[in-house]
Amino acid sequence: MKRVLLRIAYEGTAYSGFQIQPNAPTIQEAVEKAILQVTGEKTEIMGGSRTDAGVHALWNVAVFDTNSPIPGEKFCYALNGHLPEDIRILASTEVPEDFHPRKCDSTKTYRYQIETGRIYNPLQKNFYHFTYQGLDVEAMQKAAKYIEGTHDFKSFCSAGAQVSTTVRTVYEVKVEKEEEKVLITVKGNGFLYNMVRIIAGTLMEVGYGRLAPEKLPEIIEAKNREAAGPTAPAKGLILLRYDIDNMPRIL
Amino acid sequence: MKRVLLRIAYEGTAYSGFQIQPNAPTIQEAVEKAILQVTGEKTEIMGGSRTDAGVHALWNVAVFDTNSPIPGEKFCYALNGHLPEDIRILASTEVPEDFHPRKCDSTKTYRYQIETGRIYNPLQKNFYHFTYQGLDVEAMQKAAKYIEGTHDFKSFCSAGAQVSTTVRTVYEVKVEKEEEKVLITVKGNGFLYNMVRIIAGTLMEVGYGRLAPEKLPEIIEAKNREAAGPTAPAKGLILLRYDIDNMPRIL
Repeated sequence: MKRVLLRIAYEGTAYSGFQIQPNAPTIQEAVEKAILQVTGEKTEIMGGSRTDAGVHALWNVAVFDTNSPIPGEKFCYALNGHLPEDIRILASTEVPEDFHPRKCDSTKTYRYQIETGRIYNPLQKNFYHFTYQGLDVEAMQKAAKYIEGTHDFKSFCSAGAQVSTTVRTVYEVKVEKEEEKVLITVKGNGFLYNMVRIIAGTLMEVGYGRLAPEKLPEIIEAKNREAAGPTAPAKGLILLRYDIDNMPRIL
Repeated sequence: MKRVLLRIAYEGTAYSGFQIQPNAPTIQEAVEKAILQVTGEKTEIMGGSRTDAGVHALWNVAVFDTNSPIPGEKFCYALNGHLPEDIRILASTEVPEDFHPRKCDSTKTYRYQIETGRIYNPLQKNFYHFTYQGLDVEAMQKAAKYIEGTHDFKSFCSAGAQVSTTVRTVYEVKVEKEEEKVLITVKGNGFLYNMVRIIAGTLMEVGYGRLAPEKLPEIIEAKNREAAGPTAPAKGLILLRYDIDNMPRIL
């Protein structure tokens, strides 16, 4: 028996999120099916980030146990042959048997992508949230600074999450403008349910001029989901990196 | 009666090309349907570039005639409300009644996008041709130079095209490497059926080391489709620009 760590990239458009659920296509189901086809073993993968329906990943992680003789680093090639083309295993490696991606220190980097302008680009429709309203990027940058640090992020957590604490540390919230695009990059040690999308939705309220940047400390202090802005649409969100401390070299 | 010029962008993945055909979804059919819904008029649009199935466009053009009172520059907004989300009219304007996009001088700019590496990025699967074989970009750049200029491009034309002459002028063929991507940009006054994809397929043969760059003049001289490389897959091709000389300002 060995434990194998996968680095997974996917376009989330066609999926009801990462985590398996009945009667809906999920990333987890597709990967477990591929493992079954390659090894003949029915298994349950343990994912790193359980991304929502429509959210994309360039680098998510998952582990599973197997008795297969296939070397850890060869699994990516074997599995890709049995996966739909919108999911790819970019790398794989054997890890210690007690390794669990959610039970070790890690840094997750998400990017929320917004397209502004008159009319959206149809080639990017699945990866950008479009708004024809202008965004005040400087105001968003000011507001972003208040989010950085260790806070109780209860105001930025959708109902339905089962967590022992809503305190998280956000290392960086960067807001950049590139031509007609506004990119929000959020880096932290962990995120609550919908947290990045609520951060993006709140920063957009600031960008639209409906919320002053200086209101952010109050919103955090409220510890109440009602205090923050709306949850931004899923399709603009990409999990860019899932860096695990002491991660095996290959990943 | 007035003639309206449209600037059209689309992801071609779901379509059997620009030009209308029975029992298959096309860009032309979708746009004509939207015009019917907006104006109540059954009309036939005249497209600029009749792109193939799976080919994308950031800037294609088409004209149509209408008795609608909607001002030319407002048509883009009216039509977008009736188009599938993978097609957008980016701009529209009234043009002289005898204006035809294929009967005036214009410059078309295409880009062929190739991704190299171990495993492809699933977020870009519809827009890049993937190859895990390395490409010698310097050799491709050398070969590209021979294609520039006015030549009889019969070797770079698929059968089935009805054209009075196979002579075309290619202003520029640029091959660039960006990390694991190789981008071929081709600019010319007109292109034969599949010509850009055959240029890309031939340059890839050079990149793989299967064809010497110095063979290009011979291939052109042969005036025989068999002499050139294979037609590269459609999904890597994007029509970037369709610049019409003396184009109305708005486009």
